[in-house]
Amino acid sequence: MPLGGLEEIGRNMMFFEYNNEIVIIDAGLQFPEEETPGIDFIIPNVTYLEENRDKVKALIITHAHLDHIGAIPYIMEKIGNPPIYTTALSREIIKRRQEEFPNAPKLIFEEVKAGDTVRISDNFSAEFFGGMHTIPDSIIVLLKTPAGNMCNLGDFRMEYDKEGNAQGMAMFEKISVKGVQAIFLDSTAAEKPGKGVSEETVEQNIEEVFRKAPGRIIVGTFASLLDRIRTVMQIAERCGRKVVISGRSMQENVKIAQNLGYIKMTQGLIVPLEDVRKYKDEKILIVSTGAQGETNASLMKIILGEHKHIRIKPGDTVIFSSSIIPGNERSVQTLMDNLARQGAIIHRSAFMDLHASGHGPQEDIKAVLRAIKPKFFFPIHGYYFMRYTNVNNAVEAGVKRENCVLMDNGQVAEISKLKVEVIKETVPAYYVMVDGLGVGDVGEVVLRDRRVLAQEGMVVIIATMDKQSGKILKNPDIISRGFIYLKENKEILDEIRRRIRGIFGRLPLDQEVDIDYFKGLIRDQIGQFLFNKTKRRPMVLPVVIEI
Amino acid sequence: MPLGGLEEIGRNMMFFEYNNEIVIIDAGLQFPEEETPGIDFIIPNVTYLEENRDKVKALIITHAHLDHIGAIPYIMEKIGNPPIYTTALSREIIKRRQEEFPNAPKLIFEEVKAGDTVRISDNFSAEFFGGMHTIPDSIIVLLKTPAGNMCNLGDFRMEYDKEGNAQGMAMFEKISVKGVQAIFLDSTAAEKPGKGVSEETVEQNIEEVFRKAPGRIIVGTFASLLDRIRTVMQIAERCGRKVVISGRSMQENVKIAQNLGYIKMTQGLIVPLEDVRKYKDEKILIVSTGAQGETNASLMKIILGEHKHIRIKPGDTVIFSSSIIPGNERSVQTLMDNLARQGAIIHRSAFMDLHASGHGPQEDIKAVLRAIKPKFFFPIHGYYFMRYTNVNNAVEAGVKRENCVLMDNGQVAEISKLKVEVIKETVPAYYVMVDGLGVGDVGEVVLRDRRVLAQEGMVVIIATMDKQSGKILKNPDIISRGFIYLKENKEILDEIRRRIRGIFGRLPLDQEVDIDYFKGLIRDQIGQFLFNKTKRRPMVLPVVIEI
Repeated sequence: MPLGGLEEIGRNMMFFEYNNEIVIIDAGLQFPEEETPGIDFIIPNVTYLEENRDKVKALIITHAHLDHIGAIPYIMEKIGNPPIYTTALSREIIKRRQEEFPNAPKLIFEEVKAGDTVRISDNFSAEFFGGMHTIPDSIIVLLKTPAGNMCNLGDFRMEYDKEGNAQGMAMFEKISVKGVQAIFLDSTAAEKPGKGVSEETVEQNIEEVFRKAPGRIIVGTFASLLDRIRTVMQIAERCGRKVVISGRSMQENVKIAQNLGYIKMTQGLIVPLEDVRKYKDEKILIVSTGAQGETNASLMKIILGEHKHIRIKPGDTVIFSSSIIPGNERSVQTLMDNLARQGAIIHRSAFMDLHASGHGPQEDIKAVLRAIKPKFFFPIHGYYFMRYTNVNNAVEAGVKRENCVLMDNGQVAEISKLKVEVIKETVPAYYVMVDGLGVGDVGEVVLRDRRVLAQEGMVVIIATMDKQSGKILKNPDIISRGFIYLKENKEILDEIRRRIRGIFGRLPLDQEVDIDYFKGLIRDQIGQFLFNKTKRRPMVLPVVIEI
Repeated sequence: MPLGGLEEIGRNMMFFEYNNEIVIIDAGLQFPEEETPGIDFIIPNVTYLEENRDKVKALIITHAHLDHIGAIPYIMEKIGNPPIYTTALSREIIKRRQEEFPNAPKLIFEEVKAGDTVRISDNFSAEFFGGMHTIPDSIIVLLKTPAGNMCNLGDFRMEYDKEGNAQGMAMFEKISVKGVQAIFLDSTAAEKPGKGVSEETVEQNIEEVFRKAPGRIIVGTFASLLDRIRTVMQIAERCGRKVVISGRSMQENVKIAQNLGYIKMTQGLIVPLEDVRKYKDEKILIVSTGAQGETNASLMKIILGEHKHIRIKPGDTVIFSSSIIPGNERSVQTLMDNLARQGAIIHRSAFMDLHASGHGPQEDIKAVLRAIKPKFFFPIHGYYFMRYTNVNNAVEAGVKRENCVLMDNGQVAEISKLKVEVIKETVPAYYVMVDGLGVGDVGEVVLRDRRVLAQEGMVVIIATMDKQSGKILKNPDIISRGFIYLKENKEILDEIRRRIRGIFGRLPLDQEVDIDYFKGLIRDQIGQFLFNKTKRRPMVLPVVIEI
């Protein structure tokens, strides 16, 4: 049962149930969309798991990116705080994040590593293989169940050697030998033809830019793109530059990776942020968060002159080593505009391989499917069209079309040794939104109001009425926000007041006063009047005060 | 003086002034951004031209796309309704649009065509050349002034023949011979390496998809991409398909282009929309608006089952032949998801050349600059970084770096025969926003309020106070929208009321009542309370009614 990730990018979470046992894979968050203004992020709906918390035996985490771990602080208590099976690096990153949530429960971990096989419960055991993504210690899960082996690759990319040969094929064949009943495969890049860019190519290109840079170098990337961060630090070392890490989350991730030995550096390569001015420009690399133009990230602070230790100076070379998340194009443009205005030399990955995606395109997908030879194919991670396209990839790689299963979030697939059937029953999978301290308290009505307020603004009309006579007692108060300046539009203001007095004045003397009826009249008549005058439909909020 | 287009994509407008004469080139609109919620679009600020309307001798329009003509209905009266110098097709499209604005003035046109030279005023004359964009009848303007020839290419792309030779080089050399003091060049694709895609390649690729399509074909594109519309109609004719145009604006544009002979079709090729079902599926091409996922466009209606004559059926082939405008990614994704769910076969330009951009990339830019050999180079059309990058292109094409001028909207460049100087004085160029019937009445404060309302919602608190005693008369009324359901959060509601009574209760008996003071207290204390409780900052609007 997929709870998220099948109709979006992010919010990845699925679970397997057999008899009275449930095993979950991943618990990610999704970043807000245009349709969800003001929301911090969206997490999977765990209603079903909450109701069946006694059955939950394990949460397996494939890797420590937020779209796979981000929901953990919000859901663990609800689902009975099951043990988390994951690798050491993922565990440490999850633990650090959990510290930001003082009320969340203490987590229980079962450390696993590639090569391990662990028994989880009566019906489930899991074997782990080395995953290939952009963060170390990713794992591939082969969940062994009475209905066969279920293979979840997590986020998937293929790496190539210098001759262009795909790496890890031996591992995929090993998985194949064990027999894969069903594979659950990343569809993020399913539409993209060809093979992925090799990290080695990226490394060469970045090094080339490094060698030409006349002054300081700033590399902007994600705090969680630990493989890339390691790569640029290695290049810096080869080029005789010291490394400064700017951005709290990146500093913490690097420290965790160093402590666990995933990033091995010569003593003294990384120098403290506050020492950045002690080195010559051509001897410094700054690795910074904020390549997406995020408001509070280090790169934005640097540009706005709000960073404690770093300002842009002419001759700085800035390298954007990440893809732009759709929706951030404008913020990244602003970032680049300001960098250019301040004299920086900019290199971005849009037109040069300074970044390799963490998601394999079509030829990578087909190669892995040809090697693993699954019986059933479930495309996961991505909007419908991406997953639909991935079915075509699978068919080209030899999976029977009738064995490809296109599900939606909340649907239930019954998998047996012989067949897969998507049954009629569903589990709740609608958005759970996190906004400030609130989880799930912002619903569709609140969002709809926010969208209307954003588009058209609002007008509050306060009429004070004599309870006995139904007569209006004083000139109505009118306030508006996000609509027009009413102060500058006295004509409209006067006309609203005139119309409200009219509404109350037309009340027959002997009629009983129904407040809601008045409110309805005000909403309709003033709303229509404002629309005729302005062709806008602000939210009209009538308040009638009875004295 | 550029009034728009230099810090954005769109809103293109610039003008030249000499003694008491002004000539304007283009008057476009810009589509709203994330930062301008609810706005219909943004137009150039014509304050300076309004104040100098007597000097305005002409508005020259390079081509009939909205980012070059969209502001016309809003500004012509203000700037003295000068004659519009443009080609026949542009004139007809401008005229049709003007009809939607009954209060806008009747426009005066001076028809020109490529090859013409016209005297505009004492100091200005203009020679026109055939422009190369994605709509027929585009023109290049060579404005002849006492300070030399000013060349504005409009939107610029290069076309190639089968051997890959750039077309129109003879024309550029002809322009060069006349001597170009300053060139004003499109920077939209200045970052993109290489040459542009040839329309011929696009044609071949689309034809290939046509030949393989088992059933109906739907091509989604822009209503104004008339060159592409013509191309797909020609392919349809070769493949023996009738053409149906779906979308009012596209129907009108095609009709105008047909009437003027820009689209020449065999009689009976285009059939009425209502006859679409009379033809076999494999004999029909539908050309439709809405490839950006626009809410009210034809393609969206088709998908939602709201189109009068067309529904998607399994086996339909849908071709997206346009680029995705940044910000529309999510809508286009929804469009494709729904098409795929309904059984359509989808081809999109993202991964195949089914669309050629109307904006030439680096090698095209350099080729034209090498041919024209301008003395001064002004990159226009695009954000700062695009124009900054275009300066590098120009330098590589032989323009001296000190002769490249990077301006911002509202700046003034004094161009003489010998030099260019950007002077200190500026003209107003801030956003003028169109929202419904209002032009310019939505300002920064209204937008700021909309953004806050969208992110956090609002809470209105109405306290009724006895004017004499300063005592609160009844339980305060509280309404909220876009924040949380207060009804479901009775605890918070009660606490707000308690705190408001506290604020009024603490008033010393003999103190004079200052309403604004109370309002400030309510705003601060309730705002803080709500933030502590929810970590959200809704707009708090206190109203104190004195009785």
